[in-house]
Amino acid sequence: MHRRELPTPALVVRRSTFDANLALMARRWPDHSLRPHVKAHKSTALARQQAAIGHRAFTCATPREVIGMATAGLDADLLLANECIDPARLSAMARCSPNVTIAVDSDVTVALAARHGITKVLIDVNVGLPRCGVAPADAGRLADLARSHGLVVRGVMGYEGHAMGLADAAERRAIVERSMDKLRAAHTLTGGDVISAGGTMTWDLHHDSGITEMQAGSYALMDSFFAAHGAPFASALFADATVINVSPHHIVCDAGLKALAMDHGLPTTDAGEVWFLSDEHATIKPTRAFTIGDRVSFIPSHVDPTVAYHREMHVVDDQDNVIDVWPVDLRHW
Amino acid sequence: MHRRELPTPALVVRRSTFDANLALMARRWPDHSLRPHVKAHKSTALARQQAAIGHRAFTCATPREVIGMATAGLDADLLLANECIDPARLSAMARCSPNVTIAVDSDVTVALAARHGITKVLIDVNVGLPRCGVAPADAGRLADLARSHGLVVRGVMGYEGHAMGLADAAERRAIVERSMDKLRAAHTLTGGDVISAGGTMTWDLHHDSGITEMQAGSYALMDSFFAAHGAPFASALFADATVINVSPHHIVCDAGLKALAMDHGLPTTDAGEVWFLSDEHATIKPTRAFTIGDRVSFIPSHVDPTVAYHREMHVVDDQDNVIDVWPVDLRHW
Repeated sequence: MHRRELPTPALVVRRSTFDANLALMARRWPDHSLRPHVKAHKSTALARQQAAIGHRAFTCATPREVIGMATAGLDADLLLANECIDPARLSAMARCSPNVTIAVDSDVTVALAARHGITKVLIDVNVGLPRCGVAPADAGRLADLARSHGLVVRGVMGYEGHAMGLADAAERRAIVERSMDKLRAAHTLTGGDVISAGGTMTWDLHHDSGITEMQAGSYALMDSFFAAHGAPFASALFADATVINVSPHHIVCDAGLKALAMDHGLPTTDAGEVWFLSDEHATIKPTRAFTIGDRVSFIPSHVDPTVAYHREMHVVDDQDNVIDVWPVDLRHW
Repeated sequence: MHRRELPTPALVVRRSTFDANLALMARRWPDHSLRPHVKAHKSTALARQQAAIGHRAFTCATPREVIGMATAGLDADLLLANECIDPARLSAMARCSPNVTIAVDSDVTVALAARHGITKVLIDVNVGLPRCGVAPADAGRLADLARSHGLVVRGVMGYEGHAMGLADAAERRAIVERSMDKLRAAHTLTGGDVISAGGTMTWDLHHDSGITEMQAGSYALMDSFFAAHGAPFASALFADATVINVSPHHIVCDAGLKALAMDHGLPTTDAGEVWFLSDEHATIKPTRAFTIGDRVSFIPSHVDPTVAYHREMHVVDDQDNVIDVWPVDLRHW
């Protein structure tokens, strides 16, 4: 099947670009030094491509992602880089594989993990982003508490997410340095082999940060936000749409708010200027002549919540033949 | 089950508020004078509630919604208020029920509808919103073309969507008047029994507009955007989340960008000021003390693309007992 024959809206992955993104990242962070983040694509089929080039440890954001990866046999080393206090989900993660590690950042999360069968944890450290994580100075106490509950403390994680939206590399570098100072300080208090951090926008800023693994996810498919902020990976993910209306000053395509997440702004396209999205439409001021039935390809502004709207990604070669389908099988929670 | 026991994030519908919204709308637009828009909830179970109080004609935005409604037996009168040029989807809609009408706005959409088994159309008229729709002056020619293809032209539709985001009722009223002048003018050229228009923000501005039916959808569940702009319907839909982290200056809940659409901005909550959403988190500056495990309820900023992230809505009574589950069974395309 040719890409033009796909019912729209449809997510499309250009295989050669995807492969180049994986290769670029793997040269800097080979094998287990990269722990790809599953939340960016929510697809075991895509994760299998990452495993095939050596990355067999994965980062997850939800219990559903952990359990789905384990069910698919991709459970060499699964990290839930998030706090969970749901007994049923903790038990399900504990049952699904012996190789599950979860993040903890409080007495409550430690106690619940231990009570519901989890055996391995990372101490999640707040390195500056106002989200989860224990204060660095309290990391040692929490690690001791975890060990007193019989948990193996594998080390620390700390996500410098507040660096990701900065276009200036020097500013990003400064945040990475300050954040990793905190993370290393916490690690001296916790012990363990793992210091886990990073993301697509800081992949090249960790040469002396002391981390043992990088958690990047967006690099594989990319989006216009990270591309505009200077990440060297290329857009491999597109939302294809069909032109259904040609008016004197605009055209309308059949991809809208339920196909393209808007938290990072409008998607982009070489078809013209995107004026606005409605639930099922994109209105565009076109830069060339269009006919009803023509295809328009959008680059999403944020890959993660865009992929979460879709059931599958269609993989194409450089001639736009559809060569594979990757189900988005890790959606929901 | 009590609402507190739902795994989170979870969509929750307060039954009494939902019923009040339906009753308020039905007093003004009873029975077939309202054609509720399915895109706002994507749920045949919810649509069944609307049918039970007399609204048995429905508006859909996608072929999937049309076919799903027909499969559920809710096909007394189904309108695809959108253009479709996909032969397979046109044929599937034609097969699913004898009571399917679709919007057409160009020679191409007319020809394809006729070729693939559609029998009834509305002429979609551009009344000012830069989206689909034929120019009013061209509506008569298009209706004649449709009839020459053997299609029944039931009348016209024209969505004054450019009025929906205006907080000032006088401005909304002025747009409704200008838009409906265009729609009535088009109708004199097309004939047919139907003049279909409107939405939740203009539900009370059509007393002399000449429309035969109102297409509102958001009124049933509502969202913070329409509430802030003065619609008298109440928020019946909530995204419930669990507090997983309590830090000195913020708390973190487990509902993020994949549970709450952001095109109309951040969700709101009485728990405090929402600072930002991440993929699976909301960071909040709380206005009262919270403990890990507490629940936080968000009002989505835009109902349609929020519901589209979820598999079901949990219906609760005024004591927060879960009394029903409405699957979101009309997702995707």
